Amino acid sequence: MPQLRQDPTTKEWVIIAAERSKRPHDFIKAKTLIEKPPYKEDCPFCQGNEHLTPHESLAYRSGGLADSKGWWVRVIPNKFPALSPEGSLEREETWFFRMMDGVGIHEVVIESPIHNQLLPLMEDKQVEEVLLAYRERYLALREDPRIKLIIVFKNHGEAAGTSLDHTHSQLVGTTVVPSNIRKKLEEAARYYDDHGRCVYCDSIKEELKLGKRIVMDTERFIVLQSFASRSPFETWIIPKEHQASFGLISMEDSKRFAKVLKTTLFKLYSKLNNPDYNYVIHTAPIKDEQEDYYHWHLQIIPRLTTPAGFEMGSGIYINVSFPEETAQFLRED
Amino acid sequence: MPQLRQDPTTKEWVIIAAERSKRPHDFIKAKTLIEKPPYKEDCPFCQGNEHLTPHESLAYRSGGLADSKGWWVRVIPNKFPALSPEGSLEREETWFFRMMDGVGIHEVVIESPIHNQLLPLMEDKQVEEVLLAYRERYLALREDPRIKLIIVFKNHGEAAGTSLDHTHSQLVGTTVVPSNIRKKLEEAARYYDDHGRCVYCDSIKEELKLGKRIVMDTERFIVLQSFASRSPFETWIIPKEHQASFGLISMEDSKRFAKVLKTTLFKLYSKLNNPDYNYVIHTAPIKDEQEDYYHWHLQIIPRLTTPAGFEMGSGIYINVSFPEETAQFLRED
Repeated sequence: MPQLRQDPTTKEWVIIAAERSKRPHDFIKAKTLIEKPPYKEDCPFCQGNEHLTPHESLAYRSGGLADSKGWWVRVIPNKFPALSPEGSLEREETWFFRMMDGVGIHEVVIESPIHNQLLPLMEDKQVEEVLLAYRERYLALREDPRIKLIIVFKNHGEAAGTSLDHTHSQLVGTTVVPSNIRKKLEEAARYYDDHGRCVYCDSIKEELKLGKRIVMDTERFIVLQSFASRSPFETWIIPKEHQASFGLISMEDSKRFAKVLKTTLFKLYSKLNNPDYNYVIHTAPIKDEQEDYYHWHLQIIPRLTTPAGFEMGSGIYINVSFPEETAQFLRED
Repeated sequence: MPQLRQDPTTKEWVIIAAERSKRPHDFIKAKTLIEKPPYKEDCPFCQGNEHLTPHESLAYRSGGLADSKGWWVRVIPNKFPALSPEGSLEREETWFFRMMDGVGIHEVVIESPIHNQLLPLMEDKQVEEVLLAYRERYLALREDPRIKLIIVFKNHGEAAGTSLDHTHSQLVGTTVVPSNIRKKLEEAARYYDDHGRCVYCDSIKEELKLGKRIVMDTERFIVLQSFASRSPFETWIIPKEHQASFGLISMEDSKRFAKVLKTTLFKLYSKLNNPDYNYVIHTAPIKDEQEDYYHWHLQIIPRLTTPAGFEMGSGIYINVSFPEETAQFLRED
C-alpha cells in the first residue's frame, strides 16, 4: 500500500510508492568513474587560469596578487550570471504583465584550485574554508540593500545540471522574495502561532525521539532523512539551536557544519558511488533573519529519479524509497 | 540584461537569462532516432499482450472480448500504481506527523496498439479517440466520492521520466488537494476578486492583442508560449471559452482539442527533432469544477534543460530562451 505523507514544515504531500519501492542499494550508481586530470588548460576555475574569469570578489590565499595563483578557495562573479549587478529595480508593468531587470548578484565559489577534487574527499580544513567563504560572501551580499534573499547551492554532476566539472558552489542574491519562499515562511509562521514553537525545532525533537530517520546526531547539527522525502536519500542538515538565517552562524559552528556536511557527502559518495546531487541552503530572507518561526537548513537532493508529469501537475512527488530505510543504510558502516 | 518576469496566474517569478540565452534552433535534439519495432513480445501495451496487464477499465474496440485484441485505445489500471484504489481514508496522525494510506486511482491510457507509434504522427482520428478516452475516464473517476482531483499527464522519453516506450498517458485521481494546487486556485481567486474576471480569460485576451507569444489561434483554443515560461518551449493550450474543469469539455470541443494538441506536438516533434516532453492538464479540483476564477489548460514542458540547485532553493526557474522567439520559431513553416 502506498503512503501519503505530509511534510510538517510545508504541508506538502508526498507519495511513498511502496509498490514500486526499491531497496537502498538499488540506487548505487553503476557508472564507473571517469578519470579527470588535476589541471585542465581551458578550465577557468583551475589554478593558473585566473585570467579566464572576472576579478575575484574573495580569495583565501597565502600571498600573491588578486587574480593570480596561490589561493585555496576563490570566489568570482559568475561570467554568465542569471542575475546581473547593474540595472533598474523599477518594475516594468502593463496593467497585466509585470517584469523587471534581472538585478541580483551571482557568484561562484571555487572550492579548490585542483580540477579533479571532490568536496567529500577533501581535507576537513579545506571544507571548513569553503564554508567560511559561503559565510563571508553571504555577509557581504547582505550589505547590498537591494538584495532580499541569498541562496547558496551546489550542483554536482550532469544530472544535477552542472556544466563545469571543476568543483564549485554558487551564491545568488535576489531582489525579490520568491512566492514559494513566502509560502514556506507562512506555513512556519502559522505553526509558530499555533504552538509557540518553531516547526523545525520541534521536528528535530520529534525525529530524535523516534531515531529511525536520523543519519547523524552531533552536538550542534542533526542529519536526517526527511519524514516526507520527495526523492530517495533527500537529506537535511539542521542546526540544533534555533537560528533563522545562515548569516547568523558563528565561525565555530561554521567549522562544525563543514565537518558534518563533509561526512554526510562522504556517506552518499561512498555508499552510492558518487551520485549526482544538488544541495541548497534554505535560509530566511534578509529582513526575516531574526524570526522565531523560521530555521535555516541544508537540503541535499541526490538526482536518482526523474520528476515527471504527475509531479508537475500536482506538486506531489513520488518517492520510491522509504526514508527510514535509506537512513539505516546511511548509518551502517 | 537578464529579465525577471512574473507569471500573472501564479505570481511566480522566472528569470529569462539573456546572457546565457540560446536561439530556438540550439534546442534541436542531436540524437538520431532509434528504430523501434511495431510489436514487442514483452511489451504489456502491445496488441496481443493484453494478458500482461490488469483488466481494462475502458477500450475502444471493433469487437472481441475485454482484454483481447481488436482495440485502438485501451485504458488499464497501472500495474505499479502510485496510489491504490483500496485502503483507508483515515489520517494516521501523531500530534506532529500526518500520513494516510496512499488511496487513489492510477490508470494508463494506451494510445495505440502499435508499439512504435507517436502521438504527433498518428491519424487525427486516433488522437481524437485518445482525448475522448481521457474525457470518459475523467468522468468515470469523478464519480468516486473519494477522489478530489484528477490529473491527466503524459511522459514522453527518458528525460521526461518514462520507463515504457509504448506510447501512453496516465490519469491519477488523488484523495487530497495538493497544497500547490490550493495556492494556484487562491491566486486565481484573488485576481477574480480584484478584477471580476478570470485571470486565464484575461491572459488570452492580452496575449491575442500582443500576438508575439501566440503559436496558433483557432476558434476554440489558443496555443502560446507563456509570458513567464519556466523553460524553453513551455507551451500552453487554453480553451478560449471560460471552463474551470477539463471534465466539462464537450465531445465536439474534445475533438477540436485533439486536433490542436496534435498539431502543436507535431510542431515540437518536427522542429526540435522529437524532444522528450511532459504534458499535463491543469484542471480544477472536482468540488471547484464550476468556479468562475479557474480555467483548465494543458501545459507541455519539453525537457531541454535541467532545473538545479537554484530552482530547488528559490522556486525561480532560469529559462535560457525568450518565449517570443520560441513562439516565432514554432509559427514559421
